[in-house]
Amino acid sequence: MFTKAAMRRLIARKRDGEALEREALLALIPAYMSDALDDAQMAAFLMACVLRGLNEEETAALTQAFVASGESLEIASDAPMLDKHSSGGVADTTSLIVVPLVAACGVRVGKLAGRALGHTGGTLDKLEAVPGVRTDLEPARFLAQVHDVGCAIAAQSERFVPADKRIYALRDAVAAVPSIGLIAASIVSKKIAGGASAIVYDVKTGNGAFMREPEQARELASLMVRSTRSFGRKAYALVSDMNEPLGASIGATLEMIEARDFLRGTRRDPRLQELCLALARAMLRLAEHPNPDAAIASALANGSAHARLERMLAAQGALPGALEALLPSPQRRVVTAPRAGFLSAIDTPALGEAARELEEHGGPGCGIIVAARIGARLQTGDTLAIVHGTDAKNLEIQAAFTITEHSFAARPLIRDEITR
Amino acid sequence: MFTKAAMRRLIARKRDGEALEREALLALIPAYMSDALDDAQMAAFLMACVLRGLNEEETAALTQAFVASGESLEIASDAPMLDKHSSGGVADTTSLIVVPLVAACGVRVGKLAGRALGHTGGTLDKLEAVPGVRTDLEPARFLAQVHDVGCAIAAQSERFVPADKRIYALRDAVAAVPSIGLIAASIVSKKIAGGASAIVYDVKTGNGAFMREPEQARELASLMVRSTRSFGRKAYALVSDMNEPLGASIGATLEMIEARDFLRGTRRDPRLQELCLALARAMLRLAEHPNPDAAIASALANGSAHARLERMLAAQGALPGALEALLPSPQRRVVTAPRAGFLSAIDTPALGEAARELEEHGGPGCGIIVAARIGARLQTGDTLAIVHGTDAKNLEIQAAFTITEHSFAARPLIRDEITR
Repeated sequence: MFTKAAMRRLIARKRDGEALEREALLALIPAYMSDALDDAQMAAFLMACVLRGLNEEETAALTQAFVASGESLEIASDAPMLDKHSSGGVADTTSLIVVPLVAACGVRVGKLAGRALGHTGGTLDKLEAVPGVRTDLEPARFLAQVHDVGCAIAAQSERFVPADKRIYALRDAVAAVPSIGLIAASIVSKKIAGGASAIVYDVKTGNGAFMREPEQARELASLMVRSTRSFGRKAYALVSDMNEPLGASIGATLEMIEARDFLRGTRRDPRLQELCLALARAMLRLAEHPNPDAAIASALANGSAHARLERMLAAQGALPGALEALLPSPQRRVVTAPRAGFLSAIDTPALGEAARELEEHGGPGCGIIVAARIGARLQTGDTLAIVHGTDAKNLEIQAAFTITEHSFAARPLIRDEITR
Repeated sequence: MFTKAAMRRLIARKRDGEALEREALLALIPAYMSDALDDAQMAAFLMACVLRGLNEEETAALTQAFVASGESLEIASDAPMLDKHSSGGVADTTSLIVVPLVAACGVRVGKLAGRALGHTGGTLDKLEAVPGVRTDLEPARFLAQVHDVGCAIAAQSERFVPADKRIYALRDAVAAVPSIGLIAASIVSKKIAGGASAIVYDVKTGNGAFMREPEQARELASLMVRSTRSFGRKAYALVSDMNEPLGASIGATLEMIEARDFLRGTRRDPRLQELCLALARAMLRLAEHPNPDAAIASALANGSAHARLERMLAAQGALPGALEALLPSPQRRVVTAPRAGFLSAIDTPALGEAARELEEHGGPGCGIIVAARIGARLQTGDTLAIVHGTDAKNLEIQAAFTITEHSFAARPLIRDEITR
């Protein structure tokens, strides 16, 4: 049994920069979950992990301990089931697009998704913008839908990984969030418990991401790939730019509309398209699909990906015609460039937060449509964004766009790939 | 008011290596003491302080907040009152000797002392080895005794510095003890609350000390001197070696006997004498005594220092003749050198712990008398130590002495002085 005295020695060792044994970390989590250890000891331990780091073996052990704290789904033996994860961004509708797209290519996708956090949007909130849609699928129903429809997007069951839930709340309360190892253990444990046989990770970097520095993002991506593989699952990660919103639309309903329109081919933002295709390709490759590029092109061109989105939403309770009926709020104002020049930076978190406030006050269909991309040449009065909602946020939104005199090279969208 | 959200931001700033404002630290402690903050947030904050450090201003602010958490004594206006502090060691009887010695030189001493901790002895336990002696003096009685007798040694009142008591217990539970800034705030706040106008600090370094490295010890000593001065008190510190027991005797009764015999001149260990004289001299200098060396020599030679110890103990309840009647346990065994060579190292904590166990099992008068000093040339069978007690600890105690072939230069006892 893990006593408070043993925990004190373990904290001291991590505080002094030692690497801890697998057995100790595997014993620590059940001791905490059974209240043999208190929050104060765990908080000090987590802060020591943040400041001293966790190596690959420690991260894998903690991940295993998290998985073991609750129920989990077995990997299906008949066919691969893919999952994808994004580390959180603004105007990131890739899950809404890629999940049905990959399913339309014949590969099952069972995605466990989250809620909006801080300035970032949540896939569950976007799905629920379609009247009738439920995301609280019981594990058995989730698996049955993946089997029947080919895909599902649901909230994590409360019965999975309870240790992560409790420890994440403690990390949040005591400012012990920013640790590559703790973040990786939290993310990977949930994916492992969800029963996916292969997982694609999209780690964001830039001013709108939780990992602002590309090196950190790459380190997290690489750690998650190695940790996932240690559980006998396939894995791939890419690092993508989040110095500006990924797609054009910010706000749950507006983003659901953007995903719908992307799949039916009426509007495809080039950056959003580049990332969706890269993610779908990676997922099909992990599933050993013989010809990913041709399958993706065909599913987008023949409408089967769009049809799969509608089937998935219907299976999760969408009212008939509800997806097609989604509309932006009719209250709209245009935010324009106050001077000529080049768009050199966008305050991505400011736009994410402004969109959330517009939705909170104005309801469904409110948010922001971004009309200018970094690197764009602007004249005074050109449209920077269209604001849907009741608040007078024009000046605040205009201030999120930095216009400078000189042109410069734009950043690549996909900054790194971890394939092995 | 200090909310949990404000605390989270403060933890994050310390986690990221920022220096915190005086106001924030002054608000933090009352918020914790009023239970507006929980132990988990405080534990994470303390761990961040351990790993990121506290600068001089932060340490002074925390010290002030600790003092403000309870009652404190005013500095007497009529005459200086000195205090001394040792950071804890083995066979360190300096307080029992220096307090009456300085009082016999005409300078008041009001010492607040502690209990045994880990392998180190506690001055209160040594005093209480004299039958009848009380150390739980109420503040008014403590001050009255200092006024009437010239000196007193007492436990810290429970009403002084309650924040330090609570935070020290939390630091101990969550392994957040080793921080120069937190240690300095804990020590200095108690001395300031005790009303001393001038304080002498003895910071130990070596294998028997809590600060093993001399650089750390010097840093702590220097920080305590500066912090003490920021409260308008005089201060001096020295760094002394604790790679071997300071005096010869380890164990409460044996150490009280050693102090008694030192003051009456029948037995004076040279290392103990060197440190006692240095501390007494520093205290007299801080009190602006015109001729410290002559006064000390006279008080030791004419018996007035020994008489002052007896008066102090009597004032604190000692039974008549009790000090003179103290005896080592009659159960004694000799531990001898297993081979010839030079005594090159002593496992000081091992001797401290062995002596505490001998006392626990054998009662008063048990412990260890160390008979060999580092650097000594030994023949096989020479006495290393005399063990008083019922346990068969000979092999364990013999193993604490390292004998090597080659001679070497001994370390100086006083390694550093911080006079300003």
